[in-house]
Amino acid sequence: MTPDARQPGDAPRPDISRRGVLGLIGAGAAGLAVGGAAGAGIALAATSRATGVVSATSEYPFFGAHQSGILTPVQDRLHFAAFDLASDATRDDLISLLQDWSAAAAQMMQGLEVGETGATGGGPNRPPEDTGEAIGLPPSGLTITVGVGPGVFDAGRFGLESRRPALLEPLPRFSGDALSVEVTGGDLCIQACAEDPQVAVHAIRNLSRIAFGRAALRWSQLGFGRTSSTSTDQVTARNLMGFKDGTANLTSQDPSTAEAVWVSASDDAGADWLAGGSYLVARKIRMLIEAWDRAQLSEQELIIGRDKAEGAPLTGGTEFSPVDLTGTGPSGALLIPEQSHVRLAHPTMNNGAQLLRRGFNYVDGNDELGRLNAGLFFISYQRSPEQFIQVQRNLATDTLNEYIKHVGSGIWAVPPGASPGGWVGETLFA
Amino acid sequence: MTPDARQPGDAPRPDISRRGVLGLIGAGAAGLAVGGAAGAGIALAATSRATGVVSATSEYPFFGAHQSGILTPVQDRLHFAAFDLASDATRDDLISLLQDWSAAAAQMMQGLEVGETGATGGGPNRPPEDTGEAIGLPPSGLTITVGVGPGVFDAGRFGLESRRPALLEPLPRFSGDALSVEVTGGDLCIQACAEDPQVAVHAIRNLSRIAFGRAALRWSQLGFGRTSSTSTDQVTARNLMGFKDGTANLTSQDPSTAEAVWVSASDDAGADWLAGGSYLVARKIRMLIEAWDRAQLSEQELIIGRDKAEGAPLTGGTEFSPVDLTGTGPSGALLIPEQSHVRLAHPTMNNGAQLLRRGFNYVDGNDELGRLNAGLFFISYQRSPEQFIQVQRNLATDTLNEYIKHVGSGIWAVPPGASPGGWVGETLFA
Repeated sequence: MTPDARQPGDAPRPDISRRGVLGLIGAGAAGLAVGGAAGAGIALAATSRATGVVSATSEYPFFGAHQSGILTPVQDRLHFAAFDLASDATRDDLISLLQDWSAAAAQMMQGLEVGETGATGGGPNRPPEDTGEAIGLPPSGLTITVGVGPGVFDAGRFGLESRRPALLEPLPRFSGDALSVEVTGGDLCIQACAEDPQVAVHAIRNLSRIAFGRAALRWSQLGFGRTSSTSTDQVTARNLMGFKDGTANLTSQDPSTAEAVWVSASDDAGADWLAGGSYLVARKIRMLIEAWDRAQLSEQELIIGRDKAEGAPLTGGTEFSPVDLTGTGPSGALLIPEQSHVRLAHPTMNNGAQLLRRGFNYVDGNDELGRLNAGLFFISYQRSPEQFIQVQRNLATDTLNEYIKHVGSGIWAVPPGASPGGWVGETLFA
Repeated sequence: MTPDARQPGDAPRPDISRRGVLGLIGAGAAGLAVGGAAGAGIALAATSRATGVVSATSEYPFFGAHQSGILTPVQDRLHFAAFDLASDATRDDLISLLQDWSAAAAQMMQGLEVGETGATGGGPNRPPEDTGEAIGLPPSGLTITVGVGPGVFDAGRFGLESRRPALLEPLPRFSGDALSVEVTGGDLCIQACAEDPQVAVHAIRNLSRIAFGRAALRWSQLGFGRTSSTSTDQVTARNLMGFKDGTANLTSQDPSTAEAVWVSASDDAGADWLAGGSYLVARKIRMLIEAWDRAQLSEQELIIGRDKAEGAPLTGGTEFSPVDLTGTGPSGALLIPEQSHVRLAHPTMNNGAQLLRRGFNYVDGNDELGRLNAGLFFISYQRSPEQFIQVQRNLATDTLNEYIKHVGSGIWAVPPGASPGGWVGETLFA
């Protein structure tokens, strides 16, 4: 058997014919049920408890109580896309788009091609339904997570004014924001995460294509090197400042995570359709890495509040030792400075607010001055936007701000998962 | 042992302390010898013959007769960078830069941090020598390949006029070129390939940092999903048109490859310093994927000259069946059309010219019209630029040109490999 070309160290590529499997599934709207039950059982099996991380053969379910891609152990590659609905799109267009996206997402998360006939089965005289670059690739842990932005609820658009969650508003302006409209906002968003960038790119590309005439890409972002873990089985990765990032992140094993992430029906009387869903905040954070790289090691560590080598709090211990915000040195000064990042972001400084982070590193080439255009594409999930707003406001005096710049932003309500036969967003129109 | 965060399906992360190993190696100029012998033996062992592909634990030697990253089995991720030397850079600056790059490249290809003290060992009062984001990551098959562009030989710059290879000239303008000066040319180039994008990015970032004051990034490109194989042990991957790409590429197993790739001392009387080196051509090829995706399957296949599912020539057989350029159908028409890509690129149509291709897919976000800014970052190695020029000129009538646009370009002479204790480019100054 020919070895897998993409994840060479992984298990050999499963000998799946994407096209062959398509014969087993329903067509058109009937295809919505694809893979629901099948996916659900596979996910845990493929994500070995021994390693706790995602592999090329990992497969996650599209259908379930919650959307995948939130508590799912963070994959290593991201393609994120924000879309604007066409100015003449109708309520029915929005519904059909969410239905079509759900059907295609369910197929792709199983490693299948999209549509009834995929990339090569539609006969010579039709454009292929699937663009083909993922033929033969395993599911690669792909998750596709769909969100709905504030603009969708505007009066005069889709008749959804009365369904707007009270908390779903564009984020306030934060101190130091330098947002570019080109990478901010959007009516809809899709987060595609996978172990293989080709699989994530294939997903966004085909979902964009499916949207043609109803919605168009507004902006998009590729990322790599997850900068957070959502499972205690994952080791903490490093961001482009060279520090471990996400050590204190919420994980799927943490009993408090569900309460911090999932919206409850009682949260908002007008938006019970969002129960079991969440709020997604994305922030494109450019790092001024050349300046950072010239800072002394001690300055870097005092800014972050942890040591660079191990990620331990400056109050001592190892990476996962509790942060002691009161610890002082021989001179009586706080070991973790007042304006350090770890202090200002700490739940005890934020009325207990916690976020489930799911960010990625990015490098978008370089700017005209020869500086790498690099940083962190921050994603967080939370039960209420107030959690993010609380923390971000508290970071106004963060000394880290000297080395970063928020250049993009967005917020979306992430509907609950769909049942087999249903579609993501269905509750919004019920 | 904590599992590896980055290549979860691979073997567990080797328990290497990057910092710890640094104590074993020499400092400063003496550090140039780092890893030469050690690397050489590991490379073949890590690249298992059974799979023939690169894994997280693969390690390639920096030192050797040829630079790594040419015949090395193509890794799955790319960070390519073109640099311009500072206007006031001297010959000594260029020499010291190539020396420093060689020392750092040799370290990083072993999975070590750069410099004497790495990211965290230099004490609190110095900026770290290494930027740190690759701490703990395995070598990931990293190769770093350095090239020297035509401008370096210009009179009045570095006293290298007499060493200019006669063939090292900016590429001619080709039919349909739409080159942007922002992604074209450069005095020097570095191709960093690895299985982990974080490792490739770390390499380019640290080499850029080392160049500070002597050379600056001119442009750079990230890529994923290698679109060619350089080993018969690798399966053929697909480009973003959904077709297998590089089926007929030269491989390290092909007896004719050495003659097609490596410059011989007798090739150019004035440039014997390049013996054992090669010429690198890079072309950033934007694909108009939305238009392509609307083309019928038969049109796509006639343009390419192969079928989409298997990659077999339209004259039949399987992927690796020979292309029969004379085969006709029932109507007497050529099965592989006159203006198909596979015909026009075929060696028999190009006086036997062959290229060792090493291209990657890329997606740079999207343009303002909501179209993915995507395509192929083409890289080829050849003994003479004439090989590339021959093929590219022959592609002027390629029907594929309706769907692609060459937007960036560059050519560099790639010096031979260095001996342990030496540095890449040394022969140029001998």
